[in-house]
Amino acid sequence: MNTYAATLDDIRAAAARIKPYAHRTPIMSCATISEMAGRDLLFKCEQFQRIGAFKFRGACNAVMKLSDTDAKRGVVTHSSGNHAQALALAAKLRGIEAHIVMPHTASPIKREAVRGYGGIIYDCEPNTEARETTAAQVQQRTGAALIHPYDNADIIAGQGTAALELLEDRPDLDAIIAPIGGGGLISGTAIAASSLHPGIHIYGAEPLSADDAARSKAAGQCLPQLAPKTMADGLLTSLGERTWPVVRDLVEQIFTVTEEQIVQAMRLVWERAKLIIEPSSAVAVAAILNEPFRSTSKAQRIGVILSGGNVNLDALPWLGRK
Amino acid sequence: MNTYAATLDDIRAAAARIKPYAHRTPIMSCATISEMAGRDLLFKCEQFQRIGAFKFRGACNAVMKLSDTDAKRGVVTHSSGNHAQALALAAKLRGIEAHIVMPHTASPIKREAVRGYGGIIYDCEPNTEARETTAAQVQQRTGAALIHPYDNADIIAGQGTAALELLEDRPDLDAIIAPIGGGGLISGTAIAASSLHPGIHIYGAEPLSADDAARSKAAGQCLPQLAPKTMADGLLTSLGERTWPVVRDLVEQIFTVTEEQIVQAMRLVWERAKLIIEPSSAVAVAAILNEPFRSTSKAQRIGVILSGGNVNLDALPWLGRK
Repeated sequence: MNTYAATLDDIRAAAARIKPYAHRTPIMSCATISEMAGRDLLFKCEQFQRIGAFKFRGACNAVMKLSDTDAKRGVVTHSSGNHAQALALAAKLRGIEAHIVMPHTASPIKREAVRGYGGIIYDCEPNTEARETTAAQVQQRTGAALIHPYDNADIIAGQGTAALELLEDRPDLDAIIAPIGGGGLISGTAIAASSLHPGIHIYGAEPLSADDAARSKAAGQCLPQLAPKTMADGLLTSLGERTWPVVRDLVEQIFTVTEEQIVQAMRLVWERAKLIIEPSSAVAVAAILNEPFRSTSKAQRIGVILSGGNVNLDALPWLGRK
Repeated sequence: MNTYAATLDDIRAAAARIKPYAHRTPIMSCATISEMAGRDLLFKCEQFQRIGAFKFRGACNAVMKLSDTDAKRGVVTHSSGNHAQALALAAKLRGIEAHIVMPHTASPIKREAVRGYGGIIYDCEPNTEARETTAAQVQQRTGAALIHPYDNADIIAGQGTAALELLEDRPDLDAIIAPIGGGGLISGTAIAASSLHPGIHIYGAEPLSADDAARSKAAGQCLPQLAPKTMADGLLTSLGERTWPVVRDLVEQIFTVTEEQIVQAMRLVWERAKLIIEPSSAVAVAAILNEPFRSTSKAQRIGVILSGGNVNLDALPWLGRK
């Protein structure tokens, strides 16, 4: 195997490191949805992780791994999503400061959540350059450690702990699927699963309108996201230099789904499995229910990583109003 | 102890009887909500039970307990809610017919669910007399066994299996709370809990606008529901002759909540615990968060039976349209 940003040992170390803080999330199933898929689906429920998403695993690992000297200077990141909350909570648990750069367009709910965990918010313009510049300024002034949302070895190792738990509990899985945004989750998942069970099928899922990973795999080189536009707001980012090699080598196939399919799968999981999932999680479920997956994969027991459950309950996608 | 419709032994027998068919539901917690309540709340998650509610436990027990001769003639009930689905599924699993009398005003979603489990639907006018008359006619014609939604010993024993599991998993609870409709759930819960842990506090929760159990306890006699009107549609019914004595003797106190408090508690559980619960379940959570409970109960570890998660996702109560 090639060398990637993290190894199975890193993931095991991360699991031990975050154990006092993170939840071991339950694995659940739904007879109706398994029947619809024609296979047994085992849901790894990261919506029940702290902050309501898997992102706490990576952020907690990165924060707890810092030396005392480094930790004292705090941590900084730019994120408008779950990573912002995750880093703020992890920093709070370590008793250090979290500086969070957020586009001024980020929703009040998300700001409130970050603030609730004690994060210090810095406003910036809603574009990558402004986010990075502002984060660099904060970093220079404070000496805080920059914890990138996904292109970071400790983050990847932390996210891999979900698959580690899943395969400890269900060693009989013959496939595993996770959504792909920046690639932190799929990378940790793929490294853990392929190391523990060589030959296990590792699949990725993406919105058709944010399909940089699928296009990159087809082209054999890392291509950026092009004007992504999807309700799966955790999957808007492009792969990074640490996640692309893992996706290239260890992910067998990436399935893309339409926005309509995302809504249908999300509603199905809420209605029948009684599980609150965000659109990004629904992407993986939608992929399995679609024809391309049906005719491609022979896997019979599939672990599905439900990445999180942070949704605005006033603007559910099937209600047709944002 | 007085003699009630069911005993701990009946509940244990029910647990063994339904084991091959029912889920052992998970117990979950939410740090934020426990903090708000000022105690540890342990949620027994019956929304993950088959048909999405605890009702499957009782229906399954009643159906599986029938002799082969009786079973052959099928089962009949009148219900527009979760019991209808539960009985239809239990009958399907036993390979017998379920005759379900439903008011013609019942929602198309509920009819579809009953039909999906193979139930045979009979329409009637939306009042108690019409429901009972129609059910009696079906019973006469078919010889089917009438399985009342709650005023039935086997139903009560079956519903008690949720508390049995809860106390097996968490013997350290010092209180347990459940919503009260017809009283099947609270009766099974109270019998199981008070037998296993004499001295454990057993609380009930009711909508203020459907508070027959609270009024009955205050009056020392069973009073009927008076024009109940609540979004907690599982709690509209009055106590029965088998459930009232249990509520009278074993339930320490009943807390009532307003419709607004139900909506707030329901949304809180969805948002922070990421658990889909129906309004009837939110009633128990709302009760704990209210001032009367705070100043009355000293319990520190409270088991909360979340009774179900069957909601119309197009008409969530906080969206202000039904």
